[in-house]
Amino acid sequence: MLYIIGLGLSNEKDITVAGLEIVKKAERVYLEAYTSILMIDKEKLEEFYGRPVIIADREMVESSSDAILASSSTTDVAFLVVGDPFGATTHTDLLLRARELSIPVRTIHNASIMNAIGACGLQLYNFGQTVSMVFFTDSWRPASFYDRIKENRDIGLHTLVLLDIKVKEQSLENMARGRKIYEPPRYMTVAQCAQQMLEIEAEKKEGAYSPNTLAIGVSRLGSLDQQFVAGTLEQLAEADLGPPLHSLVLLGKRVHELEIDYIRAFAADVEAFNSAYEMEHGRE
Amino acid sequence: MLYIIGLGLSNEKDITVAGLEIVKKAERVYLEAYTSILMIDKEKLEEFYGRPVIIADREMVESSSDAILASSSTTDVAFLVVGDPFGATTHTDLLLRARELSIPVRTIHNASIMNAIGACGLQLYNFGQTVSMVFFTDSWRPASFYDRIKENRDIGLHTLVLLDIKVKEQSLENMARGRKIYEPPRYMTVAQCAQQMLEIEAEKKEGAYSPNTLAIGVSRLGSLDQQFVAGTLEQLAEADLGPPLHSLVLLGKRVHELEIDYIRAFAADVEAFNSAYEMEHGRE
Repeated sequence: MLYIIGLGLSNEKDITVAGLEIVKKAERVYLEAYTSILMIDKEKLEEFYGRPVIIADREMVESSSDAILASSSTTDVAFLVVGDPFGATTHTDLLLRARELSIPVRTIHNASIMNAIGACGLQLYNFGQTVSMVFFTDSWRPASFYDRIKENRDIGLHTLVLLDIKVKEQSLENMARGRKIYEPPRYMTVAQCAQQMLEIEAEKKEGAYSPNTLAIGVSRLGSLDQQFVAGTLEQLAEADLGPPLHSLVLLGKRVHELEIDYIRAFAADVEAFNSAYEMEHGRE
Repeated sequence: MLYIIGLGLSNEKDITVAGLEIVKKAERVYLEAYTSILMIDKEKLEEFYGRPVIIADREMVESSSDAILASSSTTDVAFLVVGDPFGATTHTDLLLRARELSIPVRTIHNASIMNAIGACGLQLYNFGQTVSMVFFTDSWRPASFYDRIKENRDIGLHTLVLLDIKVKEQSLENMARGRKIYEPPRYMTVAQCAQQMLEIEAEKKEGAYSPNTLAIGVSRLGSLDQQFVAGTLEQLAEADLGPPLHSLVLLGKRVHELEIDYIRAFAADVEAFNSAYEMEHGRE
């Protein structure tokens, strides 16, 4: 049996009791380590589980997924993923492949950014589609997020923006020479995200949002030192929310006064927050 | 400290290790029991925790929330909720009240229907706003869900429909006479939901969806006997997905072929599924 087990958001104790029982008895334990990252080291997990954990990076999953799966037909294999098993497309691929090979699969759910973001104070049912923001380069500035945010905001909905992480990247030179030397990991910050959003609005000028639009910057969600900062995009473009991981929520118009009361406590500047809210949402 | 702890979706072992540690040491343990239900009994929880659990129904939370909160300022109180702490508006109210009283609060996240629904095979980032479906009566047929579904589908997005549960309801007569006699609990089925959706489309005729629109019925998500049935709304209006809880996902146009491959395995009737898919989504 292949068990795909969600680890939740922050540390080793965010696994469920059911998940931990499986990890303790599985023949082998893999940790998926390229679509997301946990906020703790592999060593800490191993100590907590009392088991060795094999890091499954992109290379391994792409080149050896059949080996991982094959052994699952005779023994129990645990494949650990940060958040929930259905948080990333890759895991659907793995599930489809397992189905083709007639390997039984069970998934153990957990919290992920997609539901835990409710902690920012906005009701989850008023979120529209989720978008991703990648690091811009001089020649690559993908802006499809812009149209999606506009679609959400046109009907009053909030948008969760997931921020790029770059892990195990090679420089062009090292890649060309086939040298397996990797750049240090990079995690996009709320400030970088807000800056890129403002750049694209300045180019497109379709009014999907403005420098005055309210947003909530979120960091280390689910950990003891999680942080929320509410402010305009212009303010968030200057905000420092500390170490990774960061996310951003752009507010839509469909927001209840109780939600605003809740969020106001996170305001970078309460007066600026109130005036931005009145300007965008009016007094109704 | 007030701990609001998500229990996840299905049984006593879906709590996280961190959550269980808190339950074991808390002074008192409440179980919120009116916005959702767990698929197991209170007694099973008590046995697993080795602790008494106090059921907090709507009456208690509305009339005694300050009592629950007051004791949290001096001792540790655990308030357990099915799914994730931020799944229901009520818990935001509780958090706001705790903040007013300067009571420290910590939340322990877990899976909820809002992210675990990814198990149906559709990518979560292509879901729009979530809607609720209540039991229609002869005189009360709230149809606001219809406009929201139309908004989602107009921009290609899927819609998660959360189905009504009626727990501890009084008949009008018993209510009028002040008798605390409650009706047996009722849980809406996928079939009832699909029927009500079709009734409203037949009335409104705005083409938000049709009897031929594909949807996925989901039951007992996260449990060992969870079930998915994919089919047209017309088919789902006749489908039997067994015991509660049920949910429904209405497909949008923004769907990848890999997702359709994954879902096809749940089809009530593969040929009907394929022809409905081609009719609504075309061959692109």
